[in-house]
Amino acid sequence: MLILNLSGIIFGLIGIIFTVFLTFKVLENSPGNEKMQKISGAIQTGARAFLISEYKILYIIVIIIFLLLGFINGWQMSLSFLLGATLSVAAGFFGMSIATKTNTRTAQGAIESLSKGLKIAFNGGAVMGMTVASLGLFGLGLIYYLTNGDTISMSGYAMGASLVALFARVGGGIFTKAADVGADLVGKTEAGIPEDDPRNPAVIADNVGDNVGDVAGMGADLYESFVGSIFSASALGVLTFKEKGAVLPFLVVSIGIFSAIIGILFFNFSLKNKKDVDPSKALHFGTYIANGLTLIGVLFLSLSFLKNINLFFVIFLGMIVGMTIGNITEYYTAKTPVKNLAKSAVSGAAPLLISGMAIGMESTAIPVILISFATIISYNLLGLFGIALAGVGMLSTLGITLAIDAYGPIADNAGGIAQMANLEHYVRERTDQLDAVGNTTAAIGKGFAIGSAALTALALFASYTKVTNLNVIDLSKSQVFIGALIGGMLPFLFSSMAMKAVGDAAEIMVEEVRRQFKEIVGLMEGKADPDYSSCVSIATKGALKKMILPSLLAVFMPIFMFFILGKEAVAGMLVGTTVSGVMLAIFMANAGGAWDNAKKYIEEGNFGGKGTFAHKAAVVGDTVGDPFKDTAGPAINILIKLMSIVSIVVIPILIKIFE
Amino acid sequence: MLILNLSGIIFGLIGIIFTVFLTFKVLENSPGNEKMQKISGAIQTGARAFLISEYKILYIIVIIIFLLLGFINGWQMSLSFLLGATLSVAAGFFGMSIATKTNTRTAQGAIESLSKGLKIAFNGGAVMGMTVASLGLFGLGLIYYLTNGDTISMSGYAMGASLVALFARVGGGIFTKAADVGADLVGKTEAGIPEDDPRNPAVIADNVGDNVGDVAGMGADLYESFVGSIFSASALGVLTFKEKGAVLPFLVVSIGIFSAIIGILFFNFSLKNKKDVDPSKALHFGTYIANGLTLIGVLFLSLSFLKNINLFFVIFLGMIVGMTIGNITEYYTAKTPVKNLAKSAVSGAAPLLISGMAIGMESTAIPVILISFATIISYNLLGLFGIALAGVGMLSTLGITLAIDAYGPIADNAGGIAQMANLEHYVRERTDQLDAVGNTTAAIGKGFAIGSAALTALALFASYTKVTNLNVIDLSKSQVFIGALIGGMLPFLFSSMAMKAVGDAAEIMVEEVRRQFKEIVGLMEGKADPDYSSCVSIATKGALKKMILPSLLAVFMPIFMFFILGKEAVAGMLVGTTVSGVMLAIFMANAGGAWDNAKKYIEEGNFGGKGTFAHKAAVVGDTVGDPFKDTAGPAINILIKLMSIVSIVVIPILIKIFE
Repeated sequence: MLILNLSGIIFGLIGIIFTVFLTFKVLENSPGNEKMQKISGAIQTGARAFLISEYKILYIIVIIIFLLLGFINGWQMSLSFLLGATLSVAAGFFGMSIATKTNTRTAQGAIESLSKGLKIAFNGGAVMGMTVASLGLFGLGLIYYLTNGDTISMSGYAMGASLVALFARVGGGIFTKAADVGADLVGKTEAGIPEDDPRNPAVIADNVGDNVGDVAGMGADLYESFVGSIFSASALGVLTFKEKGAVLPFLVVSIGIFSAIIGILFFNFSLKNKKDVDPSKALHFGTYIANGLTLIGVLFLSLSFLKNINLFFVIFLGMIVGMTIGNITEYYTAKTPVKNLAKSAVSGAAPLLISGMAIGMESTAIPVILISFATIISYNLLGLFGIALAGVGMLSTLGITLAIDAYGPIADNAGGIAQMANLEHYVRERTDQLDAVGNTTAAIGKGFAIGSAALTALALFASYTKVTNLNVIDLSKSQVFIGALIGGMLPFLFSSMAMKAVGDAAEIMVEEVRRQFKEIVGLMEGKADPDYSSCVSIATKGALKKMILPSLLAVFMPIFMFFILGKEAVAGMLVGTTVSGVMLAIFMANAGGAWDNAKKYIEEGNFGGKGTFAHKAAVVGDTVGDPFKDTAGPAINILIKLMSIVSIVVIPILIKIFE
Repeated sequence: MLILNLSGIIFGLIGIIFTVFLTFKVLENSPGNEKMQKISGAIQTGARAFLISEYKILYIIVIIIFLLLGFINGWQMSLSFLLGATLSVAAGFFGMSIATKTNTRTAQGAIESLSKGLKIAFNGGAVMGMTVASLGLFGLGLIYYLTNGDTISMSGYAMGASLVALFARVGGGIFTKAADVGADLVGKTEAGIPEDDPRNPAVIADNVGDNVGDVAGMGADLYESFVGSIFSASALGVLTFKEKGAVLPFLVVSIGIFSAIIGILFFNFSLKNKKDVDPSKALHFGTYIANGLTLIGVLFLSLSFLKNINLFFVIFLGMIVGMTIGNITEYYTAKTPVKNLAKSAVSGAAPLLISGMAIGMESTAIPVILISFATIISYNLLGLFGIALAGVGMLSTLGITLAIDAYGPIADNAGGIAQMANLEHYVRERTDQLDAVGNTTAAIGKGFAIGSAALTALALFASYTKVTNLNVIDLSKSQVFIGALIGGMLPFLFSSMAMKAVGDAAEIMVEEVRRQFKEIVGLMEGKADPDYSSCVSIATKGALKKMILPSLLAVFMPIFMFFILGKEAVAGMLVGTTVSGVMLAIFMANAGGAWDNAKKYIEEGNFGGKGTFAHKAAVVGDTVGDPFKDTAGPAINILIKLMSIVSIVVIPILIKIFE
């Protein structure tokens, strides 16, 4: 078994080596002319400065928890926690650094051909995807190997990952939306200058936001989903299949990483010597290769290693359900409902908002039914282990699915640079084309994120009942019911905090941008430069100040509930948070997505196009949707899992001390 | 015990007699001049026509269920169901008829003095309140007496009440908001004529909407809360305290009805020979009297009948928590948060909408904690029976609390009539003053409604576990968790349907009003009358068509879930629906309330007042909030309870047949 126990480390290392190779390949492309490099440099500097400030605050909390865990419960789990957090930070920082170097190279590549721009942007995203997947697997694999598969140490690692994820998502989400609102509300609406115009003081902050929110934030998010699902599957696997079950999730993910590498190579190969290309097809092609290979590998694993074909079915089910949720998400945020939504903008902002919320709420139904279906089937096939494995299946090819996610903001940034550097019009058109595909593929990525979050939350919940020796969680006990009720309230409170934070930070940003337009002489005529850095610094301060309270809520609530109503009530609370959190997350993500695309649909010239009454209404919808879909919505996914993992780590310690 | 078993019947009858007396007292006031009578007559006709059409559709469904229940499970429960539904219909119809006769009398009274207007409006509302409480108690008391406290028959009665309530809330809610949006969007915004202007074709429909939604809809809503809480307390009481426990809720409510009568009389007495008066104080005075007397009566009951002082504490707790939730509601929808919200309107509609949603989401926290607190304490004092009794305590003085609720739309209507009949300016000022107080007191009423819904849902859930012999509802079973997840999704799907229905109906209404302004020559100059009835009929058709699907969802989901995943999953589903439903209901009600009052605050002249950019933004917020607070939000409260009661009634039958 020794070699199998090393699989996480080995395939993690293979992934890391491939990532380094890919990084060199991306960086060997030309970064474009001096002006482009200057702009890209400003984005890089801003993004790094934000991340470093964020990590400083984050590490104060990480170190406190590290010390507390160490002194109370020994250093093995505590060091695992530190490693989980640190590798997440490293993945986020490295992946984002490369992304900010790729944007200008993508713009430069797009001058040559669409295909070259696509290739560079995708490979930049793939660096992010592979970094996250490889480091996640390597770190957890290392803990697994060193501690002989000690569940408690692995839970510490997962908690580190979760904690960083929540901070990164909330902090990044506040930054990006505050900057976005500032840039749009004053620049586009009041001053009447186009998107990504260099005269807009918030334009650099806006581009920084795409990187710290959509690249680093999402990377940390999926790092924690990935780690959480492997951990929970391993912890449940050992209960039914002993050592084989414990190592199985690592093997599945190892196959997934290997397949993702092949998929990425195939993608690059398919573009060789091609000038024109359908970006959507090319991206899907790589994903299909990776998923197909993974399934073949898992089939082999089912027959020869576990000797149970149900493993194959469960992974297959996870993949299919993840993709279907993705397609449903795409339907609600890009197809017929969006066209109808855009039509309602003709009657004004209020009907558009009501219809958008109705779309978001309706869109919870099918994903929930699909998740339920996956849960029931996989439970019948392999018990609780099956549920966790379905989640692992959804995320197994993360290296390439996250690549496609991270590709979006890179293409978006490339467009911004093309605009700001006054490149020829056709370049911007090409980057817009790349960006548009990114929006669609991102929808599928969100589907995987939501589906896997729900399944992982379920698996983590099951792990919690095991580590606390709760054989039954009896809902007919009033403290459990109350736990569920209070748990159900938390995502609402959390979202409220996140949205308020965006509103407050945006308000300060709006004032600063207005001030610059008024006070800097010659700005509108393009004779003077705006002060980009003051906008970056405002967004940074706002985000950092406001990210702490909601994040701590997730850490302290399980502990608080344990002392007030006991460990069974904590279980009730986790269920309540999952139930209302999953709905709220889907609702917010899809309502926001639908408003965003309804606006774009109108901007394409439908219902009168830009500048009409309908367009103004659509801008209101888009602005309301921004904190929905990019701040509160995605952060709830992490909230759910962080609360579960904190409970798994902390409650057994508290039981030992106080019971 | 015989006399005690008759208490429901006796005090129900006393209430009915008092109501008849009060009705004559209201009707003996002058209905004003011919024009006023004509307008009031048009509102009456429209409202009655709507209710009759609604009841026709409703009775098709009621009769089908009646026959099904009768043939499958015997006629005793089935007849109880029919009685529960019919008395609810009767209460709604009678109460609303009197309310529509009171509006013009209130306007006429306001000509004389503020105090006279207040007295008439309140007494009109009290007819509604007392009708609902008396008929509810009388009917359930009759079933209790005739069947010797048979829980199953009582559950049938409660199911009848719930079914009517959901239809009335959804149908009335769609009607009132479609009419409101039509009147506002075209009349006020596009044509630029004031509120309640007789030239607006939708003005009568708008006033009809207040009656069918806020009077009849709310009456049916509280009728079902009242009946549901008494039933669940009685069903749980018999398990611990035998016959004494079963009859106890009837006794508490009998005391409450008697106290409400005294409160109403005191209110009237306090206004005697007064011209000027503080309406808010006068209304609160009556409520305090009623609650105080009820507590004294309950104290007596605790010491001499149950010989357990905990009864007193539980009822007291229920009252206090209900009032506190009311005050919290008022805080979030009328105090500091609303002023800040109004300020955000200065930056535009998007910031206002984001902030309003943040307020709504935040406002879930304290009520949930209070409900949890009440649950834990009352459970510790009297077990599950205690939880149910706390809910009974909240609703015990329904006769007077609902009076204050129903008073609001009467005062609102009176204002409309004063405007349309061109009464002198000071009359409208007085009715506005009455209306403003109504808004505040309505907030407190909503607090009671939400608090009691949550506690009653909990008690009904407990009853469900008893009737299905589920000693444990184990959340660690995947089907129970899945049940909770799907249950949590339903309030979102339901709200989506309700909001879409409002949007669709409003769209048709907007077109019709636009058409009339365009086609009827001389309308704007006041030389020709608009066609009010076509607007009423559009709202009626829209509401009736769209109310069926969401209502049936509540009836069929428990049955569906039972067949797919079994009775324990049904329990999970009920919890999921309660958890996400309570949050969504509070969120929607308070966000809507906050937007409404932010608009009013701006209209009072703050941040520039009417016609400014901020005001336009606030109008958008108010319009979005309308279906939140008056359609989807309140209907969710009923959805939660209807699903529970359907489960209690139907699942045991299905178990008998299929297991």
